[in-house]
Amino acid sequence: MSQQTTTKEAHVDVLIIGAGPAGMVCANALVQAGVNVRIVDQRPEGLIAGQADGCQPRTLEVMQSYGLAEKMFKRGEHLHKSVFYNPSPNGGIERTTRSGSINAPSARWEYGVTLHQGGVEQIFEEAMIEKGARVERSTIPTAIELSENANDLQDPNAYTAKVTLDRLDRKEDNTEIVHAKFVLGSDGAHSWVRRMLGINMEGDSTDSIWGVVDMVPDTNFPDIRAQSFVHSHDGTLFIIPRERDQVRLYVQQGADSDVIDPITGRVDKNRTSPKKILAQARKILSPYRIEVKDDKVPWWTVYVVGQRVAKKFAIRDRAFIAGDACHTHSPKAGQGMNASMADSHNLAWKLTYVLRGWSPIFLLKTYESERRAYAQALINFDKGWSKLFTAKPRTEENQDGITHEQFLNAFKTFSGFTSGIAIHYGPSVIVDVTYQTLASNLVIGERMLPHIFIRAANAQPVEIQDLLPADTRFKILVFAGNLSIDKDKVKLQTLAAALDKPENFLKRYGRGDVEKWEVFDVLCFSSAKQDQVDYLDFPEFFRPHYSRVFLDDEDMHGRSGGGGYAKYGVDESAGAIVVVRPDGYVGTIASLDGVDFINTYFAAFLV
Amino acid sequence: MSQQTTTKEAHVDVLIIGAGPAGMVCANALVQAGVNVRIVDQRPEGLIAGQADGCQPRTLEVMQSYGLAEKMFKRGEHLHKSVFYNPSPNGGIERTTRSGSINAPSARWEYGVTLHQGGVEQIFEEAMIEKGARVERSTIPTAIELSENANDLQDPNAYTAKVTLDRLDRKEDNTEIVHAKFVLGSDGAHSWVRRMLGINMEGDSTDSIWGVVDMVPDTNFPDIRAQSFVHSHDGTLFIIPRERDQVRLYVQQGADSDVIDPITGRVDKNRTSPKKILAQARKILSPYRIEVKDDKVPWWTVYVVGQRVAKKFAIRDRAFIAGDACHTHSPKAGQGMNASMADSHNLAWKLTYVLRGWSPIFLLKTYESERRAYAQALINFDKGWSKLFTAKPRTEENQDGITHEQFLNAFKTFSGFTSGIAIHYGPSVIVDVTYQTLASNLVIGERMLPHIFIRAANAQPVEIQDLLPADTRFKILVFAGNLSIDKDKVKLQTLAAALDKPENFLKRYGRGDVEKWEVFDVLCFSSAKQDQVDYLDFPEFFRPHYSRVFLDDEDMHGRSGGGGYAKYGVDESAGAIVVVRPDGYVGTIASLDGVDFINTYFAAFLV
Repeated sequence: MSQQTTTKEAHVDVLIIGAGPAGMVCANALVQAGVNVRIVDQRPEGLIAGQADGCQPRTLEVMQSYGLAEKMFKRGEHLHKSVFYNPSPNGGIERTTRSGSINAPSARWEYGVTLHQGGVEQIFEEAMIEKGARVERSTIPTAIELSENANDLQDPNAYTAKVTLDRLDRKEDNTEIVHAKFVLGSDGAHSWVRRMLGINMEGDSTDSIWGVVDMVPDTNFPDIRAQSFVHSHDGTLFIIPRERDQVRLYVQQGADSDVIDPITGRVDKNRTSPKKILAQARKILSPYRIEVKDDKVPWWTVYVVGQRVAKKFAIRDRAFIAGDACHTHSPKAGQGMNASMADSHNLAWKLTYVLRGWSPIFLLKTYESERRAYAQALINFDKGWSKLFTAKPRTEENQDGITHEQFLNAFKTFSGFTSGIAIHYGPSVIVDVTYQTLASNLVIGERMLPHIFIRAANAQPVEIQDLLPADTRFKILVFAGNLSIDKDKVKLQTLAAALDKPENFLKRYGRGDVEKWEVFDVLCFSSAKQDQVDYLDFPEFFRPHYSRVFLDDEDMHGRSGGGGYAKYGVDESAGAIVVVRPDGYVGTIASLDGVDFINTYFAAFLV
Repeated sequence: MSQQTTTKEAHVDVLIIGAGPAGMVCANALVQAGVNVRIVDQRPEGLIAGQADGCQPRTLEVMQSYGLAEKMFKRGEHLHKSVFYNPSPNGGIERTTRSGSINAPSARWEYGVTLHQGGVEQIFEEAMIEKGARVERSTIPTAIELSENANDLQDPNAYTAKVTLDRLDRKEDNTEIVHAKFVLGSDGAHSWVRRMLGINMEGDSTDSIWGVVDMVPDTNFPDIRAQSFVHSHDGTLFIIPRERDQVRLYVQQGADSDVIDPITGRVDKNRTSPKKILAQARKILSPYRIEVKDDKVPWWTVYVVGQRVAKKFAIRDRAFIAGDACHTHSPKAGQGMNASMADSHNLAWKLTYVLRGWSPIFLLKTYESERRAYAQALINFDKGWSKLFTAKPRTEENQDGITHEQFLNAFKTFSGFTSGIAIHYGPSVIVDVTYQTLASNLVIGERMLPHIFIRAANAQPVEIQDLLPADTRFKILVFAGNLSIDKDKVKLQTLAAALDKPENFLKRYGRGDVEKWEVFDVLCFSSAKQDQVDYLDFPEFFRPHYSRVFLDDEDMHGRSGGGGYAKYGVDESAGAIVVVRPDGYVGTIASLDGVDFINTYFAAFLV
């Protein structure tokens, strides 16, 4: 007996399509912020192998800000060393140099951690599950409509998107219409959302073709557990050690490779195999041998390097795309997943502010302006990097080839990108560089530099980044100078009085009492040493709890801490107020008497 | 209608009576080792306040060896700083010195972590629960019988103890007879088990009386968040900052204190109150004020310092006592809980070996010999420490008083005890000091010194203590010298060949194949630098997995590692084999050609 069924309808604040790294970071951030969110994915379960490699230093810092780095460190493989091989004059290859896998001294953890993409996604899903949220799997969108009504578009509470979802694992009752205030398409390089929104990609594919094989190796290659770059006369090979004794090989496919279908002009995976890719790897690695243990290849692929950026990252500030949907590039700098996660880390707090009614919708414009500029810089970096990566080694016969020194220099220069710490957001409504000189090494628009300070009350060393969790609050870091000097103490008292005034930003936008700001957290750092001051020397305003006030001094055994003012470029006789955005990036800097300036900064995007 | 009920009977390998710190450490260790164990406690639920304070550095290392330090660090308060106050010439008190709260440079974490006793117990119970085990609460023993049959006593599988248990929360079906192979009484200072076994305590009580109050303070005392020792003309006060903004005050009760019942001669808690103790505290802290926030005192007590050690720690090697049941002393050196946990950490692996049939029962004799000697040393330390603690400050009028320098020097000297790293087990069947000189700084009978080495295969820095989990295995640490030197390489190959022989200890007692020893783990450390050797230079025998071979070299950024041979006092041209017991203590040391010596060592207590 057939039944008349009405299609289910539902309402949600944010609908996320695609539970890859970009989608998961956004979903978890919104769930933790208490935003009403749903996330759907076409896959029936999480990835168990393959895809992206792991997390770079900046991504580890971001994961830490969500309280999730610990799991990453435990589950992943720590990548400390890079090793470079080049053609040996006697034939075969030889080791030329070793170096750190990352050269980014300002990174809190100066190394990468590899873990397959599904493992990274799982860490975020576990955090969501603790809050009762889950990925809805086996679910695809089949239609999307965006409102064009100008009033609706300006109303953060209007349901401007209508998305039809289809449950692939059900035969009946499988269609649902979801009305969402905002939509995020994080559905990968072949993004359905991007296509539906009519967003084009700009850029080209290259003629650089790579085969990728995951395996547990049996080999006499001595650097199989290091990140190894092997340049040979037979092409280039790149080894990434992975969790559970695996390695991933990236193997350059030579000009004689026939993986391109001559009719379509596209890579055809059917034209090659792990066996063929491994045969090529063996040529490059010769005289070393490499075999696959137990003949198991959990994952493999072949691809042409394409370098493309989406023309837009947003439609009418109500529908967004993030991750591979926005940018594709060569995976060998390990940037795909990392850039994707950074996209939605950037977006999540902005969506939260708009949905809470704290910011006008135009705050969301900074998502595209910040992340698209970064994607373009990344592509430019990738172009240079890929070229070097693919180039023939220089030899007597091939004077156009690159030297090992060229490669190594580029490797070190590019560490800003490969580590992720070079992410720099240009001036905007949320990035004001006016008073950069007050903290000359805390680059406005870049992430807050890690450093250890000690608690004034008990000399406990604390990493400042751990004081800046991704809890949607702006952090007001007051570098107060030396509180054992009367002048500095008076200056700080004056600042306390100013911050306490209802017309200034803290009370005006703060929402909540001083011990429980929702929009701000205020932390105070004196350059005084612990022999000079007590925590009670900080004005009471700055210590609703004893743990909020710090000294730029060494811990009790001289093992950490000290030198923070110098590292940050803050003059202790002048001091500075550093405003850190909820995503950990420096938003602006002001002088200790610059409350008016900070008022103006926040007035530009807070309601 | 009344029913005839038969009393339940049950059999268990180990029955633990008392789920305090000693009981929980033992129970968890046995559960993790797969031993059949039950643990009962009279309390209906876990402690929520009061009792012991926290964990000292060695206890943190032990918790780490069970994978539990992380929780302790997260939940507890980190105690980095000690501050010393003395009478001020102008009246009141003044700060004299600051120092680290612990002065034990060899400690992996050179500070303590405070957390109330129930919080520490909970960490161990959570680990047990993961394996499906739980504390049986509201349960007391009412009778115990120990077999005197010589044959039974020598048979590890004989049920030599019969204990009657009573469930306090049931009216029917509340009695159970448990037959246990071994029994542990970890039931506190007034131990029922100790009394039933007829074990006496030796030692005295002192005339030093202390009041203890837990609270969240409201005070202008500037060092309220540091461990503060306050000597005043009105007595001594000791402040320990705690988790959740609490502090604990230890307040000396003056000669005029009337808490001793004149009839019984014992402390009578009813004769005092938190109010009275606080009044005394205020006198000592004057001119600083101190109030109790919200008038809440979660816990308080008063006690006379008693310094006693049980005459025996075991009866016929089948029934044991541990923790406060064996030793009581003043709590101000923070040793009660720490010594208790160390007791059963020492006992658990020995019980496991005997129950598995790997060791004769006489191995258990080393529990008493090792832990009783330590308890006596602790009491001696405590006597000196308490005296200093209680003494009047030296003044012009009181030339018998102690100077601040005397106190401070003692504080530093005693750090070995207060940190727990001075635990030293004398020669025995499991401690053989014959070849101490081969690693002169790794004191045989003391815990293995922490140090960072790097993995030979990938330069990952690894703390050696993390390679020595409390997994019941002996760790065979081969310090192989410099593998870039042929002589050293040959020596190591010879050792590999010897270790591989069925008649030598590794295969003889190893049980399992080389990748999965049950009794041993073998790790190899070369003094070579990473530019000199590859991990493949280690003989294959030592690298069933690439992660087992290490270099004494710095990590890729020169931030950690290097200098391990020098720190341990191992001559790189000679090398050494260090045998670490399952509890992390150095059992013996041999030369690289000393396999016969190691055979003899293990033959003395392995079957």
